[in-house]
Amino acid sequence: MTESTSEKLVEVAKRRGFFSQTAESYGGVAGFYTFGPEGAELKRNIENLWRDRFNTKEGHREIEAPTIMPEPVFEASGHLETFDDMIIECPECQSSIRADHLVEDNTNIEEAESFPTDKVEQIIEDEDLVCSSCGFELSGIDVNDFNLMFETNIGPGDSNPGYLRPETAQGIFAEFPRFKEYARNQLPFGITQIGKAYRNEISPRKSIIRVREFTQAELEHFIHPHDDEPNLEKVEDVELVLYPATEQQKDEGEYKKMTVNEAVEKNVIESDWVAYYLGVAKRWYSRVGIDMTRFRYRQHLEGERAHYASDCWDAEAEIDGDWIEISGFSDRGCYDLKKHQEHSEESYEIFEQFDEPVTEEKAKIDPDMSWMGPTYGDHASEILEELERMVEEEPQIFERKSELRIEFDEKTFNIPVDKLNFEIVEEEKNGERLLPHVIEPSFGVDRILYAVMDHSFEEDEVDGEERTVLSFETEVAPSLVAVFPLMDKDGMGEKAREVAENLRSKGFETRYDDSGAIGRRYRRQDEIGTPYCVTVDHETLEDGTVTVRDRDSTDQKRVDLEELEKVLERLGEGEISFSDL
Amino acid sequence: MTESTSEKLVEVAKRRGFFSQTAESYGGVAGFYTFGPEGAELKRNIENLWRDRFNTKEGHREIEAPTIMPEPVFEASGHLETFDDMIIECPECQSSIRADHLVEDNTNIEEAESFPTDKVEQIIEDEDLVCSSCGFELSGIDVNDFNLMFETNIGPGDSNPGYLRPETAQGIFAEFPRFKEYARNQLPFGITQIGKAYRNEISPRKSIIRVREFTQAELEHFIHPHDDEPNLEKVEDVELVLYPATEQQKDEGEYKKMTVNEAVEKNVIESDWVAYYLGVAKRWYSRVGIDMTRFRYRQHLEGERAHYASDCWDAEAEIDGDWIEISGFSDRGCYDLKKHQEHSEESYEIFEQFDEPVTEEKAKIDPDMSWMGPTYGDHASEILEELERMVEEEPQIFERKSELRIEFDEKTFNIPVDKLNFEIVEEEKNGERLLPHVIEPSFGVDRILYAVMDHSFEEDEVDGEERTVLSFETEVAPSLVAVFPLMDKDGMGEKAREVAENLRSKGFETRYDDSGAIGRRYRRQDEIGTPYCVTVDHETLEDGTVTVRDRDSTDQKRVDLEELEKVLERLGEGEISFSDL
Repeated sequence: MTESTSEKLVEVAKRRGFFSQTAESYGGVAGFYTFGPEGAELKRNIENLWRDRFNTKEGHREIEAPTIMPEPVFEASGHLETFDDMIIECPECQSSIRADHLVEDNTNIEEAESFPTDKVEQIIEDEDLVCSSCGFELSGIDVNDFNLMFETNIGPGDSNPGYLRPETAQGIFAEFPRFKEYARNQLPFGITQIGKAYRNEISPRKSIIRVREFTQAELEHFIHPHDDEPNLEKVEDVELVLYPATEQQKDEGEYKKMTVNEAVEKNVIESDWVAYYLGVAKRWYSRVGIDMTRFRYRQHLEGERAHYASDCWDAEAEIDGDWIEISGFSDRGCYDLKKHQEHSEESYEIFEQFDEPVTEEKAKIDPDMSWMGPTYGDHASEILEELERMVEEEPQIFERKSELRIEFDEKTFNIPVDKLNFEIVEEEKNGERLLPHVIEPSFGVDRILYAVMDHSFEEDEVDGEERTVLSFETEVAPSLVAVFPLMDKDGMGEKAREVAENLRSKGFETRYDDSGAIGRRYRRQDEIGTPYCVTVDHETLEDGTVTVRDRDSTDQKRVDLEELEKVLERLGEGEISFSDL
Repeated sequence: MTESTSEKLVEVAKRRGFFSQTAESYGGVAGFYTFGPEGAELKRNIENLWRDRFNTKEGHREIEAPTIMPEPVFEASGHLETFDDMIIECPECQSSIRADHLVEDNTNIEEAESFPTDKVEQIIEDEDLVCSSCGFELSGIDVNDFNLMFETNIGPGDSNPGYLRPETAQGIFAEFPRFKEYARNQLPFGITQIGKAYRNEISPRKSIIRVREFTQAELEHFIHPHDDEPNLEKVEDVELVLYPATEQQKDEGEYKKMTVNEAVEKNVIESDWVAYYLGVAKRWYSRVGIDMTRFRYRQHLEGERAHYASDCWDAEAEIDGDWIEISGFSDRGCYDLKKHQEHSEESYEIFEQFDEPVTEEKAKIDPDMSWMGPTYGDHASEILEELERMVEEEPQIFERKSELRIEFDEKTFNIPVDKLNFEIVEEEKNGERLLPHVIEPSFGVDRILYAVMDHSFEEDEVDGEERTVLSFETEVAPSLVAVFPLMDKDGMGEKAREVAENLRSKGFETRYDDSGAIGRRYRRQDEIGTPYCVTVDHETLEDGTVTVRDRDSTDQKRVDLEELEKVLERLGEGEISFSDL
């Protein structure tokens, strides 16, 4: 049953203009999909609701960085070195196979992804694993790391490699010196981005779930490492279904159902910031039409966490019996900004101005160099360096001892403290430099779109006829309304076109259809999830009323044309329901 | 003066978060820009107004194809073979130089771009042209074609090259078999796309005007080659400033000012469809804030037209004294669909069903093969083929003559017509296959954004102080409103934050600023083009009114907080102007 839902969904998606494989006329290209009119509209609606929540309502700002970025950015981020999957190439049929998947699919081992390549080679040899395409024995064949970034050259020649970004986040991190200036050095602030990201998968699969080009919606919330707190009150009562790491490791682990408030108090979620965004996102997922009985938050296991993340939770949706990651929430600490600061020429630190200047005591020395030089000769500067280190790290030694013992090259020097002019001075500080921490909610738009379609997919029977319905929420439905003339004669066609044109001019996404029996036209709109159909009939020409038909109940009501716009607006915004009409 | 506007604009753009070069911390990368919070918001507003016009109001549908497409698509489109610029590489300093620009910049020749490479080599030799970086003499150095597509590999290895699309259009053309099915084979219909396109420029220049990654908004309007007509009435009175090819070739050519209607009647614009879209686009450009005194439509000269275009007009905006192309309007005929049909495995034709079946007369022959075989031996099949051609192309011959003369290999055959069973039969046809024509309005979003900023850039004096203003239209301004507390004390800060939060929850893009003198806060909002500033002061706490300040006039009025939302909505939608308050 679930298997067949997926097949039916992909068939409807292609036939009705949601999505299909790219360049099918040329035999198709694995891992690339084109969103047709309905899919692109659905995707944009989801993106705009994300903007409404994470830009406008949260007060964050969205930027747009290029999809191609130069090599130094990915040297800093670590992607050049570690963004790899393991590949084994069959010498017989030339198939490229993901070596860790080969192991996981054919043995009891579940975590081959985290093994080094030589261990995976060994398992392939020990278990006599064969090529999944042609059956050739792969024992003794090298397993290599394959970098998943798409590479290209910027400008003529190959001296300036560029890469298609593997995550939109780096386009934000790399530009942080601009954004901190824009934010006038005041934490916290959030920068978001919705855009394409790329992953040159060895074996793309599962329709638009694992593709080579996809859309991410990411928020990088830059916070003070210890002073900033989220406004937990806004989400304290949101109920979460949590699947903590400890439960996953049990034989019969259970979901923990609790409010955001409880999760924070019981320390089920470590980071208050992550807890805040799990609450915000839960409400958002419900709004876009994810079925909350098929939704959970799963904590990453220790070995699964990215190198930069101190804690990480995924939002997962159940699709065809599998739990699919649709977003991730991590505390990335200062990992990324630190890396970029180390690799680039600019400062990624915020200068935090204190409300009042702070006076601090500081130990310092000012050695008598006219004595040190002659006394220690070639070793004088080394000794000075070591003394500077000591005064910073262990100033109390200078107060306790009269002579300091330093060793170099198997020589020992005893330095008399009274030659060093040691003193404690008071210094005034107006602020300090610090690297912000980053909280990252990261959403995979294509997967969310697929989950929304899957969770909205229904089959029922109307007047003895089977129908397929995508019961989208009105806010995400590609079109809010379709207009039909009962027949294209007696002026009904003209009137219906006028009604459609008028709705369009008011900004409603409106379809028009005058072809085939009215029942068939309803079925078409049901399959693309249009909530309301308006029919112009003979009565319309007499009394100015039209039939409005509700997708889910298939009920019909007559509405005055003069009221139509207002009625649709209120239905669309959820102010009234169809049964209120 | 104009030169300095551009410098000032780029400085404000960087400082205020509109755009700046990507990866500046790493020394920057030529031809790539990152849009900061204000620029990205401005860009999105422009894109959404484009959608409102070209999707919703025109009834076209938007799709989203991937940015990477496989090689066969660009073999078909011709980009692999012809999407080149001429490059010469200096052997001394290794600079890559656009050879045609080198010639155009240093001689009187203006059209070097259209010359073959050997002619450009000859000119470089004859004119003793030198490297623009180091002065090295380039005589005798090869000029080569450099393909401007960014290349990458799809999947492991290099057996499956992919390219970043040089125009969004190919993502629509390649999928036409899907879209014609979606449109149920009914012309006309339009498919749009807003997305990234790429051009690996040899020398990117002029800020975001000539970049390597940019955003296009394209409409491909598929029409019946002779039956479909645009609804010219909708735009007949729109006044156009036209610069036809004939005027450009005169010494003192002039602009022709006329309505769309006149332009069509006088045949100044050949294609009615192109004329229709010039009218629609003119209104749209005015709406987004292009200064109509710095805007024109220029016809392409014969040599300038793309190979596929039968007529082409550009919308151009004056920036810094130069006319910059910001969109193009072409009749691409059936060029693209024909190419894809030839190169791929599917049909790109529409089957046009006739309202009534049509009966056609058709000439045919049914020769007596038991006679032809023995009579003509080895030549029988060749002769049959030639006869089939003749009956299709010159059926009347079969009625007029009793013997047909055919020659092969210097032999002559005389074929008696009475052995051929010639007859005229009646055949019924239900429809016919045809390749739609394509009308393409293509917009360069980054350039439009730059032109909107440039045309909105103003400097004036307020209370003896200079200020910089970006006087954006309310529909495109990154934020509609900013909220300030007069001071952050006596509860004014809390109240102001509450007002801002409330406006955000209603969907208004709202800034909040409590830092520095109020005058300085106004200046900041002026520089990012926020039309209205709302100040919460002592009076607010007493009587619930706030000050609303108008960006352009700097006038201030008091508005009741309860009315604020409605007032801003009406101001934002242009229903009232500030002076009406």
